Amino acid sequence: MDERAALALLADDLPAAGDDAAVVGEQVLTTDMLHERTDFPAGTTRYTAGWRAVGASLSDVAAMGAEATAAVAVYAAPTFDPEELRAFVRGAQDVCAYVEADYVGGDLDDHGEFTVATTALGRTTDPVRRSGAEPGDALCVTGTLGRSGAALRLFDRGDHEWANELFRFTPRVVPGLAISSSATAMIDSSDGLARSLHQLADASDCGFAVETPLPIDDAVDDVTDGPADRRELGVFFGEDFELVFTTPPDSLPGLRDVCGVPISRIGTVTDDEAVTLDDVDLPDRGYTHGEE
Amino acid sequence: MDERAALALLADDLPAAGDDAAVVGEQVLTTDMLHERTDFPAGTTRYTAGWRAVGASLSDVAAMGAEATAAVAVYAAPTFDPEELRAFVRGAQDVCAYVEADYVGGDLDDHGEFTVATTALGRTTDPVRRSGAEPGDALCVTGTLGRSGAALRLFDRGDHEWANELFRFTPRVVPGLAISSSATAMIDSSDGLARSLHQLADASDCGFAVETPLPIDDAVDDVTDGPADRRELGVFFGEDFELVFTTPPDSLPGLRDVCGVPISRIGTVTDDEAVTLDDVDLPDRGYTHGEE
Repeated sequence: MDERAALALLADDLPAAGDDAAVVGEQVLTTDMLHERTDFPAGTTRYTAGWRAVGASLSDVAAMGAEATAAVAVYAAPTFDPEELRAFVRGAQDVCAYVEADYVGGDLDDHGEFTVATTALGRTTDPVRRSGAEPGDALCVTGTLGRSGAALRLFDRGDHEWANELFRFTPRVVPGLAISSSATAMIDSSDGLARSLHQLADASDCGFAVETPLPIDDAVDDVTDGPADRRELGVFFGEDFELVFTTPPDSLPGLRDVCGVPISRIGTVTDDEAVTLDDVDLPDRGYTHGEE
Repeated sequence: MDERAALALLADDLPAAGDDAAVVGEQVLTTDMLHERTDFPAGTTRYTAGWRAVGASLSDVAAMGAEATAAVAVYAAPTFDPEELRAFVRGAQDVCAYVEADYVGGDLDDHGEFTVATTALGRTTDPVRRSGAEPGDALCVTGTLGRSGAALRLFDRGDHEWANELFRFTPRVVPGLAISSSATAMIDSSDGLARSLHQLADASDCGFAVETPLPIDDAVDDVTDGPADRRELGVFFGEDFELVFTTPPDSLPGLRDVCGVPISRIGTVTDDEAVTLDDVDLPDRGYTHGEE
């Protein structure tokens, strides 16, 4: 049984789950685990690891339209090198400071593989769910897509400095708060645009008609070798932590004024259940290796 | 560099850490990671694992004198067996229900070794810290000591049913709330009584004169073969998740009336920095294998 099937199995047992973060009164709470082998390619600094791991949970808070209040992490590793540990904490503190949350520590743990578990806490009186998109709403995304996919290629090529920079994304907490006043549904793009759209469509019981051009990051053009490859990294790769949301079209100009990051309208909510890109079905999948 | 040295190194960087849970406004937040190899001996059911992992974080909330509001967990494993996963979630839900918190899900993750990261959230306007013990205060502990040590022996012997039962401890959230009104300092006994007392003494800048008899669990008598072994499991082993606290002696009768679990007075706070058991220095250490 794979992870998605298992999550589906648990949906009935855990009604509070199934969104980017759980809502408990006015608090939102979310947790993640990242591993060296799968999440931190060779060349990832511990500063970047701290930033990115804590940032991933802050992104879930952002996707609820909540303010971020605090984060904690468990740092598990075979050894505790003081420099590495402090770099990790600095990264965690810096990403928290960026979104005005407090990094309040956590725990250390002996473990064979460098592994990080992070939790972020947020607050909102009016969370934005994945459900709620209405036919006719504009489908939008913040920032650019494909940064993490491009970073992975750069790690492979040994361009570690640029790769680390791309890996240290900005959690969209401040834009998320601005968007929350008019968004009808929201999710982060951590599973890739395609899969995130399918999740949003399932939760909102709607479809999406997406149209190119998509806001693919310039870095993707620098590391890919053709349109198919570009599309893999930009649409399917994921781990980008941008906000994907729906909103009435007439709220867009006002949103753009206050959001602080570029917002691209990439399509429209439809009343069928299809997710299409330029009228062709967009598959519900993540990155597929070997299509380069 | 070992875990304790690394935590000490970070103390300056993370002023909000250093207690059982971090305090963020009226919220308290705490996180832990547990692994199959070190924390779940062969024979531990997934129901017990869910109960115990989430319970460990709820115990940290209890040690702050806070009410527990919610918990989340990341369940990381090589495969997702539906029965195991549901049993884990049921254990997590049941321990939360016991202390009137909501188990609100979390995440799943592929990982070579069964690993659980848990986070608990609590609320209090008046957290009880590890600092604050005053000379003359009574030193007390809830419940009994040594249950987890005894459970480990029982797992070894193949008495899995009893071992699982001992492993499913009750987080002392309700007693912790009652105690919080008069406690001057509090910690949970997860690192063992001896080490917990040293942590409390360091934070409160005091000493403790502890006297036998200590409230060692009957199960310890059943699995140990003499006073030295009994003392190892009861005083040093840890992972018992009882509350160790200090309080003015005249508040004890009232506390016992409302606490709902037995409270044993095991000593007195002193104004030197020694931690003694029957006038002999109690070493600052956890369980030592091979002293049986």
